[in-house]
Amino acid sequence: MRAVCVLGTGLIGGSLLRAAARAGREVWGTAASEPTAAAAVADGFDVTTDTDAALARAAEADALVVVCVPLTALEAVLRRVDAVAPTCRLTDAVSVKVPVADAVAQFAPRTRFVGGHPMAGTAESGWPAGSADLFTGAAWVVAADDGLDVEVWRDVAELAWDCGSRVVPAAVDEHDVAVARISHLPHLFAAVLASVGAGEQGDDLALALSASSFADGTRVAGTRPELVLAMCEGNRGALLAAVDDALGRLGAMRGALASTGGLAATVRSGHEARMRWASTREPLEVPVDLGAPDVFAELRELGRRGDVVEPVKR
Amino acid sequence: MRAVCVLGTGLIGGSLLRAAARAGREVWGTAASEPTAAAAVADGFDVTTDTDAALARAAEADALVVVCVPLTALEAVLRRVDAVAPTCRLTDAVSVKVPVADAVAQFAPRTRFVGGHPMAGTAESGWPAGSADLFTGAAWVVAADDGLDVEVWRDVAELAWDCGSRVVPAAVDEHDVAVARISHLPHLFAAVLASVGAGEQGDDLALALSASSFADGTRVAGTRPELVLAMCEGNRGALLAAVDDALGRLGAMRGALASTGGLAATVRSGHEARMRWASTREPLEVPVDLGAPDVFAELRELGRRGDVVEPVKR
Repeated sequence: MRAVCVLGTGLIGGSLLRAAARAGREVWGTAASEPTAAAAVADGFDVTTDTDAALARAAEADALVVVCVPLTALEAVLRRVDAVAPTCRLTDAVSVKVPVADAVAQFAPRTRFVGGHPMAGTAESGWPAGSADLFTGAAWVVAADDGLDVEVWRDVAELAWDCGSRVVPAAVDEHDVAVARISHLPHLFAAVLASVGAGEQGDDLALALSASSFADGTRVAGTRPELVLAMCEGNRGALLAAVDDALGRLGAMRGALASTGGLAATVRSGHEARMRWASTREPLEVPVDLGAPDVFAELRELGRRGDVVEPVKR
Repeated sequence: MRAVCVLGTGLIGGSLLRAAARAGREVWGTAASEPTAAAAVADGFDVTTDTDAALARAAEADALVVVCVPLTALEAVLRRVDAVAPTCRLTDAVSVKVPVADAVAQFAPRTRFVGGHPMAGTAESGWPAGSADLFTGAAWVVAADDGLDVEVWRDVAELAWDCGSRVVPAAVDEHDVAVARISHLPHLFAAVLASVGAGEQGDDLALALSASSFADGTRVAGTRPELVLAMCEGNRGALLAAVDDALGRLGAMRGALASTGGLAATVRSGHEARMRWASTREPLEVPVDLGAPDVFAELRELGRRGDVVEPVKR
């Protein structure tokens, strides 16, 4: 089992450190602050604030390095990787995939990089909120673009399986488009719906009459704004396209309502889409020969079908 | 206790018939079809398809007549009211209030009309789906515009209390604006979000990655399209204003995302609105002297504060 070096020990990195250790892996990590490092050490983990030392050990052990820092701290960390472990096996657990791939190409271009995104989280953050169970049953997206390093691809998938996740392969741009649609846009819709529904201060009639349609439609507007902003603003390009798709549909609906008064096209299409979502089958575990030519095209097709890669037996 | 004549015995009218009977009231009703009338009679209720006979009895008994037919059947029923019981005490349980008030002014102008809207329902419809408990704990909006008949206002409020509901007074236009914002717009947002999220047939990656933000944001898109259309299309004017408010906010958000990339204004305003909703206090039961001058202005203010009228002791 390959050793793992986790850069950043917040909710995601801290959970990964715990999960990898529980799976029997040799694992160490870095923290941005002394108190976080001390808390992790007190919990029995090998965590330091000395990023260069952690990376030197990773280069020596040929470990898989996992970047778990916020998007805003990415460049600084990648510069250290390039300086200390320039050709290491590298992955990440940052939400958006195109901006991370671009940053790696710019600041750590010699690394063997395969991006990742475990679709897991809680409302909490920081080392204390972490849990070895965070990834259990979650989808873990692994980048599947042509030209990636198949050996590192397997390293990342094995780490995901060790953490109890399902491996969903996807092209990085398709991943970013998908999360814009099913995660980032819902957060923006919830925010706008909450603002329209609440209306003016001092007039609480609408809120007094609100029922489950409003409560459900605005639930994620309760998320801490900082988390929503980091997530949505980091996926600007794909999110703009999703917003424009939504605005086009809303504009057509507005036109129909104003002219004929009819909403059937909007309502029926939305109903069909929701029914399609509700009838989404359980993902199939599909065996994939990672040595095959065109393996990444096969993996991408598998992800588009909503399926996952069958864990490889050791 | 005033007798009650219920016109229409679907989910709402059928539940009202049961609840009024349980409260000890003399109550009878009409059904649109023989099978429905037969089912209600078999359940022990006094229901006929002869609307004129039911209305003649209402005129004779000075009963409160409650219109519980769909918006599309409203004109025909009101014409019978005008022919047979032209000055009766009249209320309704149709969702939108301005279109109903307009129809009454046109087709049954001599009635003593005070509109109502019990905020209750289920996914089911028809007589068999009805229940005497449907209105328990629900908000029952009672129109509170200047110039209404105070005596009939009390009749409607007493019926709502007998059914276990809280009485929320509101001007009819303010009611329609409120439900457009907190009920009708959420249904349209859910439909558009479902359509954008599901994307093209044959690409299920986005659906496979969807989590609770998408599930919650699209839940009401699962409602039967006919119900959503009847509800939303009947409230065209107020809904257009709510849609335009939402489009304005989404457009501003789109502009900020495209220019500076910043979403803080949208996300923070939505978060504040959701927090305001979450902190909405329990409504106060406020005693109101229905004999006071300007009583309807007082009632409207009470509703805008999110409060309810204290049930009057008999």
